[in-house]
Amino acid sequence: MKEEKFVLLAHGGGGKLTRELIEGLFLPYFGNPFLSPLEDSAVLNFDNLKIAFTTDSYTVDPIFFPGGDIGSLSVFGTVNDLSMMGATPLFLSASLIIEEGFPMKQLERITHSMAEACKIAGVEIVAGDTKVVGKGMADKMFITTTGVGVIPPNVSLSVFNIREGDLLILNGPIAEHGIAIMIQREGISLSGDIKSDTFPLNHMVKDILKVEGIKAMRDLTRGGLGGILCEIAEATGLSIHIEEESISIKQEVLSACEILGLDPLYVANEGKFISIVSPQSAEEVLRIMRGREEGKFAQIIGRIEKTPPGKVVLHTTIGGSRIVEMPIGEELPRIC
Amino acid sequence: MKEEKFVLLAHGGGGKLTRELIEGLFLPYFGNPFLSPLEDSAVLNFDNLKIAFTTDSYTVDPIFFPGGDIGSLSVFGTVNDLSMMGATPLFLSASLIIEEGFPMKQLERITHSMAEACKIAGVEIVAGDTKVVGKGMADKMFITTTGVGVIPPNVSLSVFNIREGDLLILNGPIAEHGIAIMIQREGISLSGDIKSDTFPLNHMVKDILKVEGIKAMRDLTRGGLGGILCEIAEATGLSIHIEEESISIKQEVLSACEILGLDPLYVANEGKFISIVSPQSAEEVLRIMRGREEGKFAQIIGRIEKTPPGKVVLHTTIGGSRIVEMPIGEELPRIC
Repeated sequence: MKEEKFVLLAHGGGGKLTRELIEGLFLPYFGNPFLSPLEDSAVLNFDNLKIAFTTDSYTVDPIFFPGGDIGSLSVFGTVNDLSMMGATPLFLSASLIIEEGFPMKQLERITHSMAEACKIAGVEIVAGDTKVVGKGMADKMFITTTGVGVIPPNVSLSVFNIREGDLLILNGPIAEHGIAIMIQREGISLSGDIKSDTFPLNHMVKDILKVEGIKAMRDLTRGGLGGILCEIAEATGLSIHIEEESISIKQEVLSACEILGLDPLYVANEGKFISIVSPQSAEEVLRIMRGREEGKFAQIIGRIEKTPPGKVVLHTTIGGSRIVEMPIGEELPRIC
Repeated sequence: MKEEKFVLLAHGGGGKLTRELIEGLFLPYFGNPFLSPLEDSAVLNFDNLKIAFTTDSYTVDPIFFPGGDIGSLSVFGTVNDLSMMGATPLFLSASLIIEEGFPMKQLERITHSMAEACKIAGVEIVAGDTKVVGKGMADKMFITTTGVGVIPPNVSLSVFNIREGDLLILNGPIAEHGIAIMIQREGISLSGDIKSDTFPLNHMVKDILKVEGIKAMRDLTRGGLGGILCEIAEATGLSIHIEEESISIKQEVLSACEILGLDPLYVANEGKFISIVSPQSAEEVLRIMRGREEGKFAQIIGRIEKTPPGKVVLHTTIGGSRIVEMPIGEELPRIC
């Protein structure tokens, strides 16, 4: 590097700059067949056992927000990353970095929330660490969780399984997590009850994996629906066509996006995922999803095509179409 | 909790307050048979496969120090925690929390250091995450690594295997890591070349595990030799007697401890460990250790007795003896 460069907020945002960091720095140094920036977990093979392994640091600000807190988020987020590979999440580690002077009551509240989240998801925290840094050396608390899950022998999900004609299914309305955080952080008061959609997806994923023809799944966290679809299109060279009118969003969330000047396509979710399935299996997957609370509003939102290669095309409600661009960084830092 | 309490630096120090936090808060909420504060890794059973699983957040300050940096430390520290359970470390995840504005050149230097450390230890980083927080919201960079290793079927190390008459072997001079950090942090200039002992112990552990009769191993990080021995004594109810004159320490490290007012027994190490072995196997373990650079100065430093129960007794060079107390917190915060 010739000129002095610095790490920017957008390098952690899950968009183009994060990709540059991964592809320009981490992959050249750590490159190995397990480390793929395109899937949500690494897949490790031990004899006949396939283990999914994933890690995430949670730096969300504020740490308490409508619909959850950093504790439940750190459990569900990692459970979901395992689930997206078709793994049954089993064990988590949790490592806490706490700012000196953090109220013990809040630590207890977060610990309680993590424990409840583990019960709901059916996982156990089996290893942990706690570090305390001086006042002003961290912002309240950060949690890093790492998850281990077992992938059933017949399951092999990957974006590289996707073919022309496959359909995209979204399990519910988008942009709730990011907007809930933003409203809480900025102290904006809006009509309507906007809550984070933080939720563990493993139970629903287990049910839909009984259907044959599921090619890949991705949860729609950093970068939102738009960012994740761009990643898939770029990685596979296929074209993803989505219908705006099929993408569900609550009216109050849409209004908040308009007020805040945010495109809901790029706003983070914590309980939404896209599954890409063969046309034959779509109806059955939809039926199963709609039978569960977290999939009640599931919809087919699009289709895989050949052209334009590597691009995401949004067909708008009024009949036009536009290319969805990969975001540069997260529009909302510290959302997860 | 009746009165308002706050998290203190010492809650992260690996001493009494850390134990209070684990036993008073985390264990009641997360309690399960895998989560033991007394071993360095959880042991997970998958059919016939025993997997060790451990996590640690590294918040060391400064991030570059004589003998290493936060990158190599985060790899070797987690490799060592797996090794202490007799596991062969295989895979690591690494999650970075970076302060906005962190120089990209330093990030590259740390990435390089992590990659080199992986080569030396023979492990691979297979999953990662990067979060960036605003300026002043974190101190430069924190790294959380989580490790997975396989425990050979015939290996089952635990402090609960220890019996009266077992011997304690220490692989070399103590207190180098903590003192190297302290000197660098405080900008103290001292004669002599004091470097951190940061080093991966897995290769030596693999060699000594060929000997039968190894009961338990613990690396001497936070809390130092004294803190870790107190934990073992308390957990097992046995008595640990150690001979001061057998505990190796470099003259310049001892002088630095005196100047800084620190008891070397409680100063952190990053390449030292204690193995507790049957009397029959001690000579063979010593021979193997001394054949390697990281065990050249290995010594038998003590013996397991019955009384006084749950206590560590130091027999001093001048012929006296004293009880070694569990430290309250880390004397040196942010050492690892």
